[in-house]
Amino acid sequence: MDTSLTLQLWGEFIGTAILVLLGDGVVAGVTLKKSKAEGAGWLAIAIAWGLAVTIAVYAVAYLSPAHLNPAVTLGMAIAGKFPWAYVLPYMLVQIAGGVVGAALVWLHYYPHWQETKDQAAILGIFATGPAIRRPFFNFISEFIGTIVLVFGLLAFTRGKFTDGLNPLVVGSLIVAIGFSLGGTTGYAINPARDLGPRIAHTILPIANKGTSDWGYSWVPILGPLAGGAVAALLFNLIP
Amino acid sequence: MDTSLTLQLWGEFIGTAILVLLGDGVVAGVTLKKSKAEGAGWLAIAIAWGLAVTIAVYAVAYLSPAHLNPAVTLGMAIAGKFPWAYVLPYMLVQIAGGVVGAALVWLHYYPHWQETKDQAAILGIFATGPAIRRPFFNFISEFIGTIVLVFGLLAFTRGKFTDGLNPLVVGSLIVAIGFSLGGTTGYAINPARDLGPRIAHTILPIANKGTSDWGYSWVPILGPLAGGAVAALLFNLIP
Amino acid sequence: MDTSLTLQLWGEFIGTAILVLLGDGVVAGVTLKKSKAEGAGWLAIAIAWGLAVTIAVYAVAYLSPAHLNPAVTLGMAIAGKFPWAYVLPYMLVQIAGGVVGAALVWLHYYPHWQETKDQAAILGIFATGPAIRRPFFNFISEFIGTIVLVFGLLAFTRGKFTDGLNPLVVGSLIVAIGFSLGGTTGYAINPARDLGPRIAHTILPIANKGTSDWGYSWVPILGPLAGGAVAALLFNLIP
Amino acid sequence: MDTSLTLQLWGEFIGTAILVLLGDGVVAGVTLKKSKAEGAGWLAIAIAWGLAVTIAVYAVAYLSPAHLNPAVTLGMAIAGKFPWAYVLPYMLVQIAGGVVGAALVWLHYYPHWQETKDQAAILGIFATGPAIRRPFFNFISEFIGTIVLVFGLLAFTRGKFTDGLNPLVVGSLIVAIGFSLGGTTGYAINPARDLGPRIAHTILPIANKGTSDWGYSWVPILGPLAGGAVAALLFNLIP
Repeated sequence: MDTSLTLQLWGEFIGTAILVLLGDGVVAGVTLKKSKAEGAGWLAIAIAWGLAVTIAVYAVAYLSPAHLNPAVTLGMAIAGKFPWAYVLPYMLVQIAGGVVGAALVWLHYYPHWQETKDQAAILGIFATGPAIRRPFFNFISEFIGTIVLVFGLLAFTRGKFTDGLNPLVVGSLIVAIGFSLGGTTGYAINPARDLGPRIAHTILPIANKGTSDWGYSWVPILGPLAGGAVAALLFNLIP
Repeated sequence: MDTSLTLQLWGEFIGTAILVLLGDGVVAGVTLKKSKAEGAGWLAIAIAWGLAVTIAVYAVAYLSPAHLNPAVTLGMAIAGKFPWAYVLPYMLVQIAGGVVGAALVWLHYYPHWQETKDQAAILGIFATGPAIRRPFFNFISEFIGTIVLVFGLLAFTRGKFTDGLNPLVVGSLIVAIGFSLGGTTGYAINPARDLGPRIAHTILPIANKGTSDWGYSWVPILGPLAGGAVAALLFNLIP
Repeated sequence: MDTSLTLQLWGEFIGTAILVLLGDGVVAGVTLKKSKAEGAGWLAIAIAWGLAVTIAVYAVAYLSPAHLNPAVTLGMAIAGKFPWAYVLPYMLVQIAGGVVGAALVWLHYYPHWQETKDQAAILGIFATGPAIRRPFFNFISEFIGTIVLVFGLLAFTRGKFTDGLNPLVVGSLIVAIGFSLGGTTGYAINPARDLGPRIAHTILPIANKGTSDWGYSWVPILGPLAGGAVAALLFNLIP
Repeated sequence: MDTSLTLQLWGEFIGTAILVLLGDGVVAGVTLKKSKAEGAGWLAIAIAWGLAVTIAVYAVAYLSPAHLNPAVTLGMAIAGKFPWAYVLPYMLVQIAGGVVGAALVWLHYYPHWQETKDQAAILGIFATGPAIRRPFFNFISEFIGTIVLVFGLLAFTRGKFTDGLNPLVVGSLIVAIGFSLGGTTGYAINPARDLGPRIAHTILPIANKGTSDWGYSWVPILGPLAGGAVAALLFNLIP
């Protein structure tokens, strides 16, 4: 493996870990009992997930392209902007970063888990779940949300703004998707953001945890991957 | 039709569809029963409509000037910054984009419509309506709001900020108008944003929908067009 | 009067009118009965006042330095960055802009005034008032808030950011002052923002209005002017 | 002491005073009885602390590197980006700035202290405290939060964004940490921000004040310092 790829994979790993530490962190802060942020609600969640992406991208942009998301990596490859040979290693370290980020959330909020008795709420800190369980439409929601994400990212590459502003714009896109399209499934729009923390939820000895709901886990994997692929195909249709 | 115009029209169509998907999307997320964003309220709506504009402009800025609004197109033409021959095609594809964006909102939130029994709330996701039904003053509200919008956009063209920042500033303008002037009529300030989704509301088989309130529809069409025109005239008075 | 000054005065007049239209507008939206933004609260007010400044500065920056505030004009003159001969005309048109902006708020929300019976709430849309009426400490609050404002503006002139970003940073400063120092007196920190709308409140036939509380009006005039002057003196102490 | 260091120390002193005036100010505004911002909650606190950092950095960036935080100064020294000889004087003036900023908060909100009977709430305006008192895990929370802060700041130095945008990005990082990691200990992540105001709380004649909880004070000092040090070591591992 060449040196350049190694550095890129470190960037994707660290970046996805920061992304999930901050992203799952806000859900923990808003959900866990006795947290000072308890009850700050959807406004806090939508804004902070966007900031999580912005900060994670700024933090590792000198190492990697900061996809931090297998659906983005797949879309960039289909759009011809990323080498296919790197797709699988990128995806694997992104998922690994998601596991580590979620484990740090568990450690950070350690005394709060035993105060929180709601098993569904605890799972919701790690993995996404549907507001109304209709897998086909849940898939459609993740599919549409990720089309907006990846089409946006591809379009931004043709825009005129400076590199320095890019992570702020990408974070704004995440906030927009959260507010506007997040209410149905909790907007995974990123398989690593859902699968990594779900693995962490399964293996860590979290107080008061229940099932990891693996039966739903295909939706926030396949929905985003399909959305990323279709966004790239649509984008390439435009001259 | 020359190639350049075709690309511009695709840009206006896609951009307005994204605008309405994200804009009507936040109202759906905040309003529909069982949505995870239910109750996030006016803060979410005002912030997310601004982000919807920012993201839509960034996404299609490489294709078109990203008016995404017939009142803006009219104002730019009156101000002498846009060819009159393009005004009507621009307006038509903007409205078509509004229809498609609203249809995507319907699809995205599909399982939630049958959970929501309030017909007025469902219409409010698609089209604007007055807080107090006084058509003359409702018209004045849309007129004033759109003057601020179009005067701002015209003034920004003479400012010194880089192109890259422009969509963020325009989004900030939308958030400001929403917070400060939106409480009366729900700030259409854009005929395509109101007419397109109202058409979608009329033709789509939305569960629990009621009337589309076409009797009010002239207000969010003529108010913004009048405001855009007057803003351009005022702007041209300044040397 | 030379042409350049005329244009500057138009800029200050229009800019302060936009500032007060959007700034008093958000208080109207959050306060008035049946407004769609009713109850959005302090978050909406603090964020939207910052946006009001940002938008007003962007909108007239091509005409004038966009002080939009007699305390800023005074501070800039004391700091040696603005000609003393222009101070009085600037202040007068800023106050006139404040009157016009407040009148537009009255017009924009016209049907809502008669729905709102709370006279203090209606005055609060136009002019600031103390949370606890202790004039000396209310003066201190306005004094401290305006020191932060004017010291910040002066320091920004020595910073490295581009002109294009400046109004966003200034708006952020206003949001910060609102959240952190606004709870005591409602942070006029700008005599034109308080005196102009208070004049409008006195002369307009607003439904359900009561007293204009002129007994308090010296605080949001003298507090900001003193703060602006001291900020400039402090700033000049630093080499 | 050379002239350059003197100016830098003035920058760190003034900047930390502004930081704490605005930062502790928002907690005062949200907490103190009869404040107009009372009840604005965690959203206001998290957003305004970020703005406090942004504004403080912009305000003194022409004087000093604007660390405003002993944990940042230590991390920069370990990372080889700051001279060790300046570390101690920087830390001392940062703490002194924290004392002065907190005293200004006391003065600014003077009439509100006697209206507020909750001693813990009053201490919480000045110093941080744990949501659940488990010192080891409270230390871990401050440690993790500060790693994210200092690793982010170090990574930003290798990024491509312009100097002008930097304080906005740093403020976004603070907002992200507040929302995502602040719920456990109130995110001091800065010894000067906690120790300075705690000293002020001890020595000022604040109405209704109780204990200054010095038994907890080592956590928001040692946690951030350890986090800053480890962040720098981790950062230096990456080529």
